[in-house]
Amino acid sequence: MRIALGVEYNGANFCGWQSQTNQCGVQDFVELAIAKIAQHPIRIHAAGRTDTGVHAMMQVIHFDSEASRPESAWVRGVNAFLPANARVLWAKQVCDEFHARFSATQRSYQYLLLNLATAPAINADKAGWYHLPLNVSAMQQGIAYLQGEHDFSAFRASECQASSPVRTLNVASINAHGDYMVFNFSANAFLQHQVRNMVGALIYVGNGKYPPSFIQQLLERKNRTLAPPTFSPKGLYLVGVEYDQKFDLPNTQRSLMLI
Amino acid sequence: MRIALGVEYNGANFCGWQSQTNQCGVQDFVELAIAKIAQHPIRIHAAGRTDTGVHAMMQVIHFDSEASRPESAWVRGVNAFLPANARVLWAKQVCDEFHARFSATQRSYQYLLLNLATAPAINADKAGWYHLPLNVSAMQQGIAYLQGEHDFSAFRASECQASSPVRTLNVASINAHGDYMVFNFSANAFLQHQVRNMVGALIYVGNGKYPPSFIQQLLERKNRTLAPPTFSPKGLYLVGVEYDQKFDLPNTQRSLMLI
Repeated sequence: MRIALGVEYNGANFCGWQSQTNQCGVQDFVELAIAKIAQHPIRIHAAGRTDTGVHAMMQVIHFDSEASRPESAWVRGVNAFLPANARVLWAKQVCDEFHARFSATQRSYQYLLLNLATAPAINADKAGWYHLPLNVSAMQQGIAYLQGEHDFSAFRASECQASSPVRTLNVASINAHGDYMVFNFSANAFLQHQVRNMVGALIYVGNGKYPPSFIQQLLERKNRTLAPPTFSPKGLYLVGVEYDQKFDLPNTQRSLMLI
Repeated sequence: MRIALGVEYNGANFCGWQSQTNQCGVQDFVELAIAKIAQHPIRIHAAGRTDTGVHAMMQVIHFDSEASRPESAWVRGVNAFLPANARVLWAKQVCDEFHARFSATQRSYQYLLLNLATAPAINADKAGWYHLPLNVSAMQQGIAYLQGEHDFSAFRASECQASSPVRTLNVASINAHGDYMVFNFSANAFLQHQVRNMVGALIYVGNGKYPPSFIQQLLERKNRTLAPPTFSPKGLYLVGVEYDQKFDLPNTQRSLMLI
């Protein structure tokens, strides 16, 4: 049978989602913990392969097992074998048609940025940081260009393996909260480093180096080398994944709540 | 001359505010970092002596030095010698009459509690956690009894050295935000473990073990042994300290950010 899990993790002390030869990926820890409960080796598939340092409020994964366990065992049992920086939030038996990655219709990310002269202490690994004052209004004008269907080549990592650079951004917005900014992005899928590259470019709009229309120019020129550098992974959170209602999953959408 | 500093720290990897023989208190790290800039030994005084594991969004301290340095040196210079989990937010020269502890007229704490079946992963060291559903409305009725001037003996650590158990709570409230609750407390001063003991008692109201009026009974009986256990330090944040306006300090009030 196929089981779907909702998973939360703090990315600071993992080397990204994907399994690594030295077993430091979140995937390695989760596969080992599930295997303890299933009593056989497990291969999991995830909605989003987050980079080193990136967090997940809501990662959705699935695996196949012939082991018959109550859903609570896939939550509390697996959690008993996970380090404290990763937690299973829920488990649900799903049909074999469900695939955590290929059935996902939308992914949502939030980016938490501290805009203050001094770096974050309490949120040291949990927020991006920019020390000079940023013009939020200019950034909000800039981010509006990113909404909709575009060729995002200018925001794509050179090693990105996606077959097409075209993606549809359904949500692209920025809210300011005191010294913090939260960026909201939802799309059918994202290119490698796309969110961190978009945040990096918007910061160059916010600090006055470029006007908001610079974002439109980057989209038109489709050239990564013209765009500002990739921003820190520390402020990036995978917060939700959408699936067809027919799969009847528990809550797959969360949001940054608190610093 | 006398210098006041605003300081933020993540309490997870310090053994409390106060200086320790093995130098693991926040005070030890801050005194050493200031001494590097002042070029002489430094003794600092703080508005609140937080316990092991307790965080500060805003701790206010002062020290005396004959070293003449620009205020930016007391911020950026000191930060260069601090670990990443502690930051100086601002520095301000003050008159000799100012005392970070004795001039403070009010301290504010917030307590962040996750009320969810699974423990926090992203906020592992930064929130208290209770796994069974809590009745927020009953807790809000209970916390109302704590407002005003009371003998808080029932909420006072046995080793507390304050001369009087009477304190005036000007703010005592609870807000729910999704799976999280935030408790807000402001008082002229707090007894040792007072906030964690009040949170612990309110959780026993929220889980239905006692009615809201239990809080009033605890105040009346003035007996610590009748009250529920001290709750975890992980969710406790010193967020603000008030002083007379004549001292003309920068911002001394922050708050947990709700997004």
